Amino acid sequence: MLNKYERLKQQIAFIVEIDKMKSIYRQNYITQGSRNETDAEHSWHLAVMAMLLAEHTDMVVDPVRALKMVLVHDLVEIDAGDTYCYDQQGLLDKEEREEKAAERLFGMLPPDQADEFTTLWQEFEARVTPEARFADAIDRLQPLLLQYHTDGRSWHEHGISSSKVVERNKRTKEISADLATLVDEIIEDSIRQGFLPR
Amino acid sequence: MLNKYERLKQQIAFIVEIDKMKSIYRQNYITQGSRNETDAEHSWHLAVMAMLLAEHTDMVVDPVRALKMVLVHDLVEIDAGDTYCYDQQGLLDKEEREEKAAERLFGMLPPDQADEFTTLWQEFEARVTPEARFADAIDRLQPLLLQYHTDGRSWHEHGISSSKVVERNKRTKEISADLATLVDEIIEDSIRQGFLPR
Repeated sequence: MLNKYERLKQQIAFIVEIDKMKSIYRQNYITQGSRNETDAEHSWHLAVMAMLLAEHTDMVVDPVRALKMVLVHDLVEIDAGDTYCYDQQGLLDKEEREEKAAERLFGMLPPDQADEFTTLWQEFEARVTPEARFADAIDRLQPLLLQYHTDGRSWHEHGISSSKVVERNKRTKEISADLATLVDEIIEDSIRQGFLPR
Repeated sequence: MLNKYERLKQQIAFIVEIDKMKSIYRQNYITQGSRNETDAEHSWHLAVMAMLLAEHTDMVVDPVRALKMVLVHDLVEIDAGDTYCYDQQGLLDKEEREEKAAERLFGMLPPDQADEFTTLWQEFEARVTPEARFADAIDRLQPLLLQYHTDGRSWHEHGISSSKVVERNKRTKEISADLATLVDEIIEDSIRQGFLPR
């Protein structure tokens, strides 16, 4: 058994390690300042969304569990990198790369917390529990909002068409009638304004 | 009373507005990539720390409340800007600027959530409850970790000496014997390695 100070040292080493989330850039642009978003920023944004939006799901959701899930869901990208959601090639071995990453990273923590973080990540990845489905939904909605408010800049760069965005946001629409309406409105308006080719 | 879709639209407007947290730069550097940290990144980092470190306080702390507190504690900087903790001039009217910011920003949310966010922020600012003291402690510890792992780069840039850092981290030491030992070790080693003048 580790004593408390040894536990603290392990936790601090992990906390310093995950600073790397600030150097992993996503494909989306932030709404100000014209640069790509980092994983750390994305995770924070989702956490606040989890605090605000749980009421809109048609399921019973424990928002705190969803909140914790989104805080840790992208940590594996420290080793595995960010795989763009429309990158078919990169998606092929994503699972394997991310499993290795989870083992190394969460293994830095004291065993009980390693278990907690691994479980949260696996639950998110499985997308079965109400909390994971909610977390997954906002993980899809958030980049849609950023694309919409940056005139679809990253959609243009990657030649993404509306059918792909519709497909990607199906799961967001599944969990909530209100979110479905919102997603449809955003996609329709994006097409109308030329952010997204039909 | 707002209907649910009107509530959703208000929440989404707020969620888009707070994207600005990714364009507010703090004085600290991130450990990789040689640029300053954003408020969004800092808030995410603190949230993970809140998940991990509550066991080290000598108080009974609800970690979830602390977690929510750190997620929202810097939102007021969207209007008020980041005031460097060693900037005596900027600290003079910080309170007034931040109160105005809280009113405008949280006022974008449906009333019940505006209340929740305002209360969390006020509780953090008052630094009285165990949760707020814990949140405050990790808000001081996190930049110390970043400074230590970037050879005190921002300390050098601002001519900060060890006595100021010791003073700044007093509150972290107050809440936990283990954190106190850690803070002392980091400051001592920073002096020894020349990151921080004695």
